[in-house]
Amino acid sequence: MEVLIARAEEHLDWAMPGYTHLQRAQPVYLGHHLLAYVWMFARDRGRFEAVRRACGELPLGAGALAGVNFATDRDRVAAELGFESVAQNSIDAVSNRDFALDYLAAAATAATHLSRLGAELVLWSSEEFGFCELSDAWSSGSSIMPQKKNPDAAELLRAKAPRIVAHHAALHGVMHGLPLTYNKDLQEDKEHLFDTADTLTLSLAAARGMLESVTFARERLAQAASDELIAAVDIADLLVRGGVPFREAHAIVADLVRVALADGRSLSGFSDAELAALAPTLDPEALVAVLHEGSWLESKVSAGGTALVRLREQLAAARTALAAG
Amino acid sequence: MEVLIARAEEHLDWAMPGYTHLQRAQPVYLGHHLLAYVWMFARDRGRFEAVRRACGELPLGAGALAGVNFATDRDRVAAELGFESVAQNSIDAVSNRDFALDYLAAAATAATHLSRLGAELVLWSSEEFGFCELSDAWSSGSSIMPQKKNPDAAELLRAKAPRIVAHHAALHGVMHGLPLTYNKDLQEDKEHLFDTADTLTLSLAAARGMLESVTFARERLAQAASDELIAAVDIADLLVRGGVPFREAHAIVADLVRVALADGRSLSGFSDAELAALAPTLDPEALVAVLHEGSWLESKVSAGGTALVRLREQLAAARTALAAG
Amino acid sequence: MEVLIARAEEHLDWAMPGYTHLQRAQPVYLGHHLLAYVWMFARDRGRFEAVRRACGELPLGAGALAGVNFATDRDRVAAELGFESVAQNSIDAVSNRDFALDYLAAAATAATHLSRLGAELVLWSSEEFGFCELSDAWSSGSSIMPQKKNPDAAELLRAKAPRIVAHHAALHGVMHGLPLTYNKDLQEDKEHLFDTADTLTLSLAAARGMLESVTFARERLAQAASDELIAAVDIADLLVRGGVPFREAHAIVADLVRVALADGRSLSGFSDAELAALAPTLDPEALVAVLHEGSWLESKVSAGGTALVRLREQLAAARTALAAG
Amino acid sequence: MEVLIARAEEHLDWAMPGYTHLQRAQPVYLGHHLLAYVWMFARDRGRFEAVRRACGELPLGAGALAGVNFATDRDRVAAELGFESVAQNSIDAVSNRDFALDYLAAAATAATHLSRLGAELVLWSSEEFGFCELSDAWSSGSSIMPQKKNPDAAELLRAKAPRIVAHHAALHGVMHGLPLTYNKDLQEDKEHLFDTADTLTLSLAAARGMLESVTFARERLAQAASDELIAAVDIADLLVRGGVPFREAHAIVADLVRVALADGRSLSGFSDAELAALAPTLDPEALVAVLHEGSWLESKVSAGGTALVRLREQLAAARTALAAG
Repeated sequence: MEVLIARAEEHLDWAMPGYTHLQRAQPVYLGHHLLAYVWMFARDRGRFEAVRRACGELPLGAGALAGVNFATDRDRVAAELGFESVAQNSIDAVSNRDFALDYLAAAATAATHLSRLGAELVLWSSEEFGFCELSDAWSSGSSIMPQKKNPDAAELLRAKAPRIVAHHAALHGVMHGLPLTYNKDLQEDKEHLFDTADTLTLSLAAARGMLESVTFARERLAQAASDELIAAVDIADLLVRGGVPFREAHAIVADLVRVALADGRSLSGFSDAELAALAPTLDPEALVAVLHEGSWLESKVSAGGTALVRLREQLAAARTALAAG
Repeated sequence: MEVLIARAEEHLDWAMPGYTHLQRAQPVYLGHHLLAYVWMFARDRGRFEAVRRACGELPLGAGALAGVNFATDRDRVAAELGFESVAQNSIDAVSNRDFALDYLAAAATAATHLSRLGAELVLWSSEEFGFCELSDAWSSGSSIMPQKKNPDAAELLRAKAPRIVAHHAALHGVMHGLPLTYNKDLQEDKEHLFDTADTLTLSLAAARGMLESVTFARERLAQAASDELIAAVDIADLLVRGGVPFREAHAIVADLVRVALADGRSLSGFSDAELAALAPTLDPEALVAVLHEGSWLESKVSAGGTALVRLREQLAAARTALAAG
Repeated sequence: MEVLIARAEEHLDWAMPGYTHLQRAQPVYLGHHLLAYVWMFARDRGRFEAVRRACGELPLGAGALAGVNFATDRDRVAAELGFESVAQNSIDAVSNRDFALDYLAAAATAATHLSRLGAELVLWSSEEFGFCELSDAWSSGSSIMPQKKNPDAAELLRAKAPRIVAHHAALHGVMHGLPLTYNKDLQEDKEHLFDTADTLTLSLAAARGMLESVTFARERLAQAASDELIAAVDIADLLVRGGVPFREAHAIVADLVRVALADGRSLSGFSDAELAALAPTLDPEALVAVLHEGSWLESKVSAGGTALVRLREQLAAARTALAAG
Repeated sequence: MEVLIARAEEHLDWAMPGYTHLQRAQPVYLGHHLLAYVWMFARDRGRFEAVRRACGELPLGAGALAGVNFATDRDRVAAELGFESVAQNSIDAVSNRDFALDYLAAAATAATHLSRLGAELVLWSSEEFGFCELSDAWSSGSSIMPQKKNPDAAELLRAKAPRIVAHHAALHGVMHGLPLTYNKDLQEDKEHLFDTADTLTLSLAAARGMLESVTFARERLAQAASDELIAAVDIADLLVRGGVPFREAHAIVADLVRVALADGRSLSGFSDAELAALAPTLDPEALVAVLHEGSWLESKVSAGGTALVRLREQLAAARTALAAG
């Protein structure tokens, strides 16, 4: 979160395309995109905090399963050992592995977030996207191909999530149908827990290292963001502001796009006469204004939107969230 | 939880064996065993409450991904629609399915708890255990064997957990490596979510019905609990109170048990002379007292233990937990 | 398979109850039950043989992905290295991990078979079943309870299956959505493969050791098998041979069983007069004959059935299957 | 397979980049890439054929679990019903669900292959790659963004694999630790099996439809394939043929690439003098020959390689494999 916030601030106003279906959809700022991951990890942290509380129940005093013959002061033991409470039922205390399951659930989702980050770094490092370049420390050469620079660490970030998800499924499988109380099967909790903790720790370190040192390609990002087609929804919004229902506005702009693509032309290249024929309700001057990139970005003024005024608020909120942890 | 608390109160002081490794370990009260499940389900409820909060973040206003051109008052929309807060980043709002993953995680663990309950009902319904009999409404006959009474519902309670655990793994699999923001893949969340909710609802209804109507076999339970061997740890504790270190006491009692098993005799059947030879530090009169069943149960006076005084406290705590939900 | 066949032969004609729904259903011979596992493992072996063939495709010669500049004789290389064939497409050769997935699938099912064996050994070792006793070498004592003999190895046999199933899911997760050809993610195959091989090897050794040294309790098994109720379907069959439709015969015997259970009586304890009233189509002498245990077992003469004549054929077939491997 | 072979033939000699780590690695022909999937699906078909054999064992005659009282001719029943053999052990016949597990394993791997195909179609449809365009019938518009053409079906192809992998894990979970013979839990096999069959059928139809109608962008592919850097390994091979050890050749070419990238120049742009300084063992004329695209592709003459002579052999082999099914 720390590194992402810092890198988001550095690249707060770098334009880039936002994607749906891996198709360019609407321009956003790179800072906005990087902050999206901050909120994922903030939720992850919330889950791990809940796990810590779940681990705060003292089982000691449950004896073999029925309690012990000695009237121990379990509350005091809990306080001295740093537990928040005592398990209320000795049978449950011995049988319970929920705290481990909770940890694995939190780790599975965190690792899946990291896999999305890893996958985007791989994608953005491709020649075709060319949005970023990983540092040499976080990429590697090819033993066969001298020209290659491979995003190995980012790929492994992607590859580790299924492993942790599987640990979650496996420990649930171990607990499945087990009679109370202790069964030797429960010993397997450590296998799944420890490998998960090791894997997640390694993944987080790799993610931090990659994010700290990755270089973004301002020009490539801006060029991709300036694709006029991704202003289509803003043109439709323009019509809506002029009183055209959205459904109708959508159809008008879709027609414009089709003609432009078929003829290999840009939206800003239509003459006033052509526009009058194709989209009579569209004001040519307003269109030109909308097609000026900045306006697409800065028009998204709703809370959480990509307009810079909102983004600065979001950055501050992210810092507060980080500090609250 | 409601039904378990009621059934636990009805059977609060029915003696039964507690098990580790499916071996009789120490006697407990049936009320104690039933309450163990209450605490599992109380933790499940806590998880579902956290899920409800996770679902309380309003995504509306994120637009296609970048926010919307209209300065909507998202806080007011959230308040009017009953959401607790607004998603802080429009890109994350569109990409995020954590709330669904959280639900599936909570459901996976709840279903696994139910699978343990189902498995115990199957086990206890066997001729060999004979600890309980399911009502006719919650069992079924065999199409081939006229004498059979099958615990079908309890078996299905056991069988449904892997299905829900798999839904959790599957949706994580869907999210694995997905670039931001929306991808059609996310549509699969509904497949996994809805079947999980249906399955869990059905399972809970079946668990409730079975628990409400199951009959426990007091005598079979008491007979199994009166197996003198499960007093062994109490005999060792007796020695410990006389100053013998636990490790040594454990060895002395293990010897007694070996001799008894080899000769097909009971621990209470040793003469004073035999005891003097086998375990000179053991007071024969204290041994007789310990082997009187009630004392094994009532000696577990630590908080959360099986002694009735503790069990009544626990029952009250379980009621409080239920009411707090 | 070897050990199971040997132990099956030793216990070929020991009567025991067969179960459905963990309810005693029909008597079988212990040899029959043990041989059931032989056929599971025979299918497992078939799967591993298919895996070996899947591993027999030489990828060497695929170069980085496009083939190599040198006209290597891949067929000869394959022959010299002991491969059966050469991968036909260099791109696929580099991308393909099916052989690993196949291994994990075979291992998942084998481990699940072993988990059923482990679970039955745990169940049968309970005081309530008392069908077998694990040797000291394959059980362990309790650090707290001096009387305990815990079936740790059998429990672990049960607990390892979800781990291997999870490895299968995890590697499929790694491959999910990966573009061709090599990606660093593929490196994870080793993590999942090696732990699976180690776990399975350990589990097989433990299963072998436990099966070699487990002692079965002939009398307890026979006593459980002599429960008259499990002859119910044979009584129904008796009626069927007398011309009564099975559905009707089923209802008649179900009534008999209900009366017997309600009055705490045995089926063989009904007087001729009572039988004439309850089941007029039932020949009292034939009933007595059926209730003589051996006849229930020996009447199952269909191929694969429990009658000894069939069981001996099956034992020979199992030996043939073992030798064919 | 049928459609892939047809499309491979149509595009047999279209140059495109082959990728490792999603980095352009070496040029291949599109026909070669499409044929890679044929071999994946051929292996899938082999697995499904093995499943069909696994389903060919007649369980009928096993009765409730012990066999039946009537000496049925199971071999004849098997023959009449189209089964290949009879289950050899009635207990195993009732307990066995391996055939369902085998189906789910085969389906999981097939769906994972389809997910790779889906993911590549999504990637190649992006503006950045621009390698293909899905037909209108297999893509969809956006309800918000008029310019969008979304590869929905390809995304769903990707998204369905985790669901089928989860069904495999779930049914193994159901079988985990189940005592023999029939338990109601086994009823769940249908839930997992039927949804898998439906999902896979749907996915295959979608894959077929997309592949039949997708249009490839010859120029974009060729342009990407003509990136001189992907000839690096061929330049190294050139040095090797001149007697330079590969490790040393790799280092020399890596230096050349570094200089070219740093100065923003192409490999073919170095003067003879520069080359003599940077790579004295490299023959400038041979370098020019190698950098002529066709030679990179046509030099891969090893069996299974991308040279057209090999590709035509492979196409014939793929047709034979298809016909053999």
